[in-house]
Amino acid sequence: MSDQERLAIEDKVRNAGLDSEDVAVTRANYERLGTTTPLVEGVIAEPGTIAGLPVEYLRPVQDLGGIILFFHGGGYMIGSLNTHRGLASHLAFAAGATVIAVDYRLAPEHVFPAASDDCLAVYKALLAEGHGAKTITLAGDSAGGALVVATLMSARDAGLSLPAAAYLMSPFVDLTGSGESRLPKMNVDVVVRPGMIEGMGGAYLNGVATDNPTASPLFGEYAGLPPLLVHVGSYETILDDSMRLARKAAMADISVELKVWPKMPHVFQLFAGELEEGRQSLHEAGEFLRTHLG
Amino acid sequence: MSDQERLAIEDKVRNAGLDSEDVAVTRANYERLGTTTPLVEGVIAEPGTIAGLPVEYLRPVQDLGGIILFFHGGGYMIGSLNTHRGLASHLAFAAGATVIAVDYRLAPEHVFPAASDDCLAVYKALLAEGHGAKTITLAGDSAGGALVVATLMSARDAGLSLPAAAYLMSPFVDLTGSGESRLPKMNVDVVVRPGMIEGMGGAYLNGVATDNPTASPLFGEYAGLPPLLVHVGSYETILDDSMRLARKAAMADISVELKVWPKMPHVFQLFAGELEEGRQSLHEAGEFLRTHLG
Repeated sequence: MSDQERLAIEDKVRNAGLDSEDVAVTRANYERLGTTTPLVEGVIAEPGTIAGLPVEYLRPVQDLGGIILFFHGGGYMIGSLNTHRGLASHLAFAAGATVIAVDYRLAPEHVFPAASDDCLAVYKALLAEGHGAKTITLAGDSAGGALVVATLMSARDAGLSLPAAAYLMSPFVDLTGSGESRLPKMNVDVVVRPGMIEGMGGAYLNGVATDNPTASPLFGEYAGLPPLLVHVGSYETILDDSMRLARKAAMADISVELKVWPKMPHVFQLFAGELEEGRQSLHEAGEFLRTHLG
Repeated sequence: MSDQERLAIEDKVRNAGLDSEDVAVTRANYERLGTTTPLVEGVIAEPGTIAGLPVEYLRPVQDLGGIILFFHGGGYMIGSLNTHRGLASHLAFAAGATVIAVDYRLAPEHVFPAASDDCLAVYKALLAEGHGAKTITLAGDSAGGALVVATLMSARDAGLSLPAAAYLMSPFVDLTGSGESRLPKMNVDVVVRPGMIEGMGGAYLNGVATDNPTASPLFGEYAGLPPLLVHVGSYETILDDSMRLARKAAMADISVELKVWPKMPHVFQLFAGELEEGRQSLHEAGEFLRTHLG
């Protein structure tokens, strides 16, 4: 990608109005931004319900089998099946597997642990439907990445069989905001603006400790988790969420791959429709998930 | 790989005698260990000389063009063209490119900066011979990984064109030994034993500061370096050398990919002849280098 193309996307994000005080406005603005990447050709979207929650099936015409359970990002407050439909469809296409995107409950209407409860409930329901754990993978971006890790940890602690692998895009796994990348990357991060972590995290946590390991799974236990693939942009204040997550995984002797994409913004995969790196990331992740789905 | 196979390799390393006080004995023992992985079929080894140094060309029969300049590991004191011939041949085969392995000068006979001077001299000689920088990649393991990074930094600082990419196996880039993984991984690391960093590093440095950025390129400047691929085992006391190197690269906005291989020992690629993960790592690295060689 040329610097000019990148700057155009940075401008678009900066002007998207994701920092409104009114959550209804932010949600509507995020819906508009999400349409940047349309449903990719060769993937069909169908609504559904699992564990009482609205979901969307994104089925690739060339289906090699297996499921990618997908949790969207948006700081636990914004984001929907609409905002991430394009992104999820690229992933379904690349993996040759059905993505099931989950419309989990959002804050401030539904506070912690509503979101993580919903995600775990859908995973359990898939197992109960007879899907083998090894035919399931997880994926998520930003807060959705945290929901992926929290779901893995909760499933492990509950003695459930674990998915085959997981793909995390710019995972937002530390609601304490303690990453040292925060200050040096402040001027280049066009998405996660100062105060956003505290604002969104606070609304979701509703008084629960910011280092609660289900809300901030950076502080959870990584032993026994399946292979993780982490993609993150270098223009992110929460770059250190990914770096530290990778280290925790490594120290716990689980398989982890981390790729840092120079100058890319937070969840650059959202712009796959017009950003080569976004498509490339989802393509590589699709191959990774396919390998683990067998 | 089964746990049994892994334990057999751990036993072999433990009993290889790499911690002798007598460097001549350690060198001889390392030569014997290196024969674990024979020259792979489809690659031809030929001796040569570049910049006055002995080198070995490892030419794949299926040659797609391009060069992988390879610096072996061994704590700046041990290792040779023999110890790493098998490893290097797997890489040449996987990349479809000629590996040029360098027999740089070793300590204690030749102290810092003999090794890094030699590596830079060979790179410069390749450029002078008319090889375009973008037809060259670098690779190295352990201290050889540090020599790769030091060569990249020195070449950049000298205003030279830089190689297309680099592959680092368990890079040993911090002679101060400050990685926090050191203690928690002490009981599972069968290669880098307590005192080895100080012993080998001390012999090489000969009084130069342990945090000298050419000897310990973790402390150097990463801006402007080409894409890096880092593979490291999770059973390594110097795991944090890789984790921190990846973070420095990420903070400097360069492309970096890190893969942590569960329970693998330091430079497990040395056992490619009998270890699936070793072959797999070199195969993936070959594809990475090929992509960047065009």
